[in-house]
Amino acid sequence: MSHDYAAILEQIADHVATEDFGDARKADYIPALSNVPDDHFAMVICGTDGQEFTIGQADQSFSIQSISKMFALVLAQRAHGDQLWQAVRREPSGSAFNSLILLEQENGIPRNPFINAGAIRVADLITSRYANPDRSVAEFLGQLCGNPDIRVDNTVYLSEDQHGDRNRAIAYLMKSFGKLDNPVEDVVRAYFKQCSVAMTAREMARASFFLANKGVGIDGQTVIAPEETRRINALMLTCGMYDGVGDFAFTVGIPAKSGVGGGIIGIVPGEFSVCVWSPRLDGRGNSAAGIRALEMLIRAIGRSVF
Amino acid sequence: MSHDYAAILEQIADHVATEDFGDARKADYIPALSNVPDDHFAMVICGTDGQEFTIGQADQSFSIQSISKMFALVLAQRAHGDQLWQAVRREPSGSAFNSLILLEQENGIPRNPFINAGAIRVADLITSRYANPDRSVAEFLGQLCGNPDIRVDNTVYLSEDQHGDRNRAIAYLMKSFGKLDNPVEDVVRAYFKQCSVAMTAREMARASFFLANKGVGIDGQTVIAPEETRRINALMLTCGMYDGVGDFAFTVGIPAKSGVGGGIIGIVPGEFSVCVWSPRLDGRGNSAAGIRALEMLIRAIGRSVF
Amino acid sequence: MSHDYAAILEQIADHVATEDFGDARKADYIPALSNVPDDHFAMVICGTDGQEFTIGQADQSFSIQSISKMFALVLAQRAHGDQLWQAVRREPSGSAFNSLILLEQENGIPRNPFINAGAIRVADLITSRYANPDRSVAEFLGQLCGNPDIRVDNTVYLSEDQHGDRNRAIAYLMKSFGKLDNPVEDVVRAYFKQCSVAMTAREMARASFFLANKGVGIDGQTVIAPEETRRINALMLTCGMYDGVGDFAFTVGIPAKSGVGGGIIGIVPGEFSVCVWSPRLDGRGNSAAGIRALEMLIRAIGRSVF
Amino acid sequence: MSHDYAAILEQIADHVATEDFGDARKADYIPALSNVPDDHFAMVICGTDGQEFTIGQADQSFSIQSISKMFALVLAQRAHGDQLWQAVRREPSGSAFNSLILLEQENGIPRNPFINAGAIRVADLITSRYANPDRSVAEFLGQLCGNPDIRVDNTVYLSEDQHGDRNRAIAYLMKSFGKLDNPVEDVVRAYFKQCSVAMTAREMARASFFLANKGVGIDGQTVIAPEETRRINALMLTCGMYDGVGDFAFTVGIPAKSGVGGGIIGIVPGEFSVCVWSPRLDGRGNSAAGIRALEMLIRAIGRSVF
Repeated sequence: MSHDYAAILEQIADHVATEDFGDARKADYIPALSNVPDDHFAMVICGTDGQEFTIGQADQSFSIQSISKMFALVLAQRAHGDQLWQAVRREPSGSAFNSLILLEQENGIPRNPFINAGAIRVADLITSRYANPDRSVAEFLGQLCGNPDIRVDNTVYLSEDQHGDRNRAIAYLMKSFGKLDNPVEDVVRAYFKQCSVAMTAREMARASFFLANKGVGIDGQTVIAPEETRRINALMLTCGMYDGVGDFAFTVGIPAKSGVGGGIIGIVPGEFSVCVWSPRLDGRGNSAAGIRALEMLIRAIGRSVF
Repeated sequence: MSHDYAAILEQIADHVATEDFGDARKADYIPALSNVPDDHFAMVICGTDGQEFTIGQADQSFSIQSISKMFALVLAQRAHGDQLWQAVRREPSGSAFNSLILLEQENGIPRNPFINAGAIRVADLITSRYANPDRSVAEFLGQLCGNPDIRVDNTVYLSEDQHGDRNRAIAYLMKSFGKLDNPVEDVVRAYFKQCSVAMTAREMARASFFLANKGVGIDGQTVIAPEETRRINALMLTCGMYDGVGDFAFTVGIPAKSGVGGGIIGIVPGEFSVCVWSPRLDGRGNSAAGIRALEMLIRAIGRSVF
Repeated sequence: MSHDYAAILEQIADHVATEDFGDARKADYIPALSNVPDDHFAMVICGTDGQEFTIGQADQSFSIQSISKMFALVLAQRAHGDQLWQAVRREPSGSAFNSLILLEQENGIPRNPFINAGAIRVADLITSRYANPDRSVAEFLGQLCGNPDIRVDNTVYLSEDQHGDRNRAIAYLMKSFGKLDNPVEDVVRAYFKQCSVAMTAREMARASFFLANKGVGIDGQTVIAPEETRRINALMLTCGMYDGVGDFAFTVGIPAKSGVGGGIIGIVPGEFSVCVWSPRLDGRGNSAAGIRALEMLIRAIGRSVF
Repeated sequence: MSHDYAAILEQIADHVATEDFGDARKADYIPALSNVPDDHFAMVICGTDGQEFTIGQADQSFSIQSISKMFALVLAQRAHGDQLWQAVRREPSGSAFNSLILLEQENGIPRNPFINAGAIRVADLITSRYANPDRSVAEFLGQLCGNPDIRVDNTVYLSEDQHGDRNRAIAYLMKSFGKLDNPVEDVVRAYFKQCSVAMTAREMARASFFLANKGVGIDGQTVIAPEETRRINALMLTCGMYDGVGDFAFTVGIPAKSGVGGGIIGIVPGEFSVCVWSPRLDGRGNSAAGIRALEMLIRAIGRSVF
């Protein structure tokens, strides 16, 4: 790799440690998210040349939340192939990640797999094909990052379940349109469980590595074909950052997927995967320090996908 | 350039000449668009190494329509800098290009510069700063492609003006929110004129070249900085293809901007700009053969931006 | 009563027996509704002078469905008084009776008690205060019409429960806004049960009588105060006929509440209550013959509330 | 008339003179409205028995604004008959009086004649049939109230024209759907002029009298048939009070039409017409003191239409 990533990461960590992120604050709807210290920060780069660079709390677990949607999508696509796209569209929604408005107007077919409706439908498709849908995303993540101990954090899961009424509303609305194949409670359980997986930034950067490496994971195994890898990256770029997709593409310009646990994964195809984690969120639900860190990284290396 | 582009273009032209594009049909709201022969097709590639490849009616003029929005944006940004982004956002809209619904809900601030509302606001910003706003986009295009004779097609302009009620509604709605600086008729005239510019596919590929070449045009002059070039490309990828943005990113995966005249420009950063033109449109207003041609091109060279 | 109601009812029955109601068709989402013979028709008038006039199958039970919403509202108001209007608004919704769009936009507070969201919230309020919320509306109807045997039709209830996903979506959406006090399943069970009550047109006209009689029922007991009676009538006029409220007020002009079982109750304050029943529905879910019958009745007596 | 209306009006005037209407404030988008003294109040009742009762500034002119929509509707119906209802629907809109959202979703056909879109379409229909559409509503009002000097206030008109962008947006949107027959500027001019008519509360009560008197005006001439009178009253009740229709029907319960000039007309069919005027508006654009006054009046006489 042609840049001094170790130095870049240090500069970034120094910068975000002192920047005032104003109104940014942690997700507070469940204790597991609100109890994380404000100042935690980690960033890990996995280069396609095999090098790995880290800074901060790279080995501390966090709740991956919506980042799981990307991995669940890959799982579902492996089982259903392009049939998947009969069930979920792939257009930016232009509205909030948990809105039911477009879903009602568009007869229960979700706009894309990264809004909640789409992710719930993907969990439904997984439930139809995998033996243990409650664990399949966690196990897949374990394979990808080389740590078979990746688990659902049961405390987080119970909290998600308890605060899951909006997602149940979404699931029942799809069900009422005949657009959900399995019982609502089975589907939302699988969905809440996938969101409750705990991983470190290091594990997450490794798990995402195949997207930077033409579909081949850190263990040298093919996860998906190169063409499918490009497609997943395209989807992340157009739909991966909640309703901040356009701003993020404009200012950073790489495929990325964020979660309300404060994690973001990013991909520079052919170069590296990156995971950044910092718990305080901006108004759109993306990690404030995380977005700044990725912006600095991209500026330092002088390239985005564009 | 490492591929045999001449051969690729021939294969593409052969393919689209025989493919049945089903319901695709020309824009029919004005004669200048509906009178173009169905089977016209042109494709031009301008490589960053200086090579140019063409096939089909590469030197026949067509109406550039919404492709003009991208060039108007560059003009406005040169005059206003990042102040521009106070006036227009840069998020996918998730709804039709000429819808007023989000515009009303978001107090007259357009979602992005490529929906009509945003393009009209950009025309307003140009009107505030350029001496001859009715001609400024045409003149800019002439400079970029090296043909000072690029002109507004007055017949098309008169038709646009006559069918311009929806755009006037959009402009007056922004005006009512205090979000339009100049008189509505002045702004929509400038906007209709920019949409009515006639150019060939060759000229259009050349005019777009700077976006593939880090901001430097075919004449070696810098149009915009490299970082701004990346940003424009990002905007095209997230907002450039009407409400088919996600599908196009997924299946093709390069920044592109289309117009209802049947033209599409596409960018592979560092490699080439491309313009394809074929008048029949799919249900989203994008050239059906044009999208297929770009898809084949990207597959042939084995890379998108992802 | 100053008109020959017996003759008027005969003319109406003769007319609707021969009128072609075009596309009107029965609700078909559950067997109990789709199995009713198309040509069934009943109409019953209860005059404030004590006279009663009937025609057709006046003693055959039908599923009261959404007509129950009005009686549930009266029950809830008796328990909660004007506090009720903190929980539910009283404005026409301007959209479909089962839409979630406004409900999301307005943070889970239903527009009025006659759209499904509002009725579910009313069922929630009843659940909070009545010992047997699953039976309370049926028992109230039994008191009002003088037949203690009024019951929930359990077959209909089971069908409603089975087809209740849309209503569960609505309930969970309110729950997610903190706007539902009881568990979703408890509330929707009470709601489905009230909709599944079976009554005859005669019983229904009697049960509605208090609204024509300043709040005093057929047994001489006060149900609600005169002022509250006027308010309920006002609500029916502005919100009682699904999204055909304006047309019905325009062409008929009396407070009314319809159900997809084909029943409609109508009120001419000071004169009479009326129930008409015919199972085939127009495009808005109101009984086609029922609306025509009420229109003819009002024209015959030369007065509406206006 | 069976009540002591003189005494009732005095009680009302005493009450509203001391009530604190909190946040209520005058329309401030044009000087003619914002310059009226806050404490002005007038109320006039025209009984069907020929008696007239007044209190306050009953002979001071105010800007009738949207109250004109009701009279324009009557004019249009006289020229077009029931064809009118092909052009405008008669359902409550459930959204703001000047919203374009439903208008776009429903292809340019306004929900009812009392939202701005509907009133503009009515002005369009008047423009097609009346020789002097800019004066026709004013002249009609002059005939109805017996004062041929009723005029458009030209200062108000010029202000309306200057602040008319939102209404132009609405008109152009209808035009773009092919739903406006005359040039936009002709139609909005007629519309702004009708809104700018100046009248006193006495004149307004007299002009509205026919709606309480089965279609016969104060001069004994038939304005419209009794059935049509009932229909107009029904429309006012379901659509006449902006987005406060349901609350007003609930708390007051009579057909009424308000304007942002602070005037409200109300009808108790068979009994009287009433005009109340006070310039400070509640959050929905209805006169705050005016609504309270009508509520007190209805309570005092113990009857609404329900």
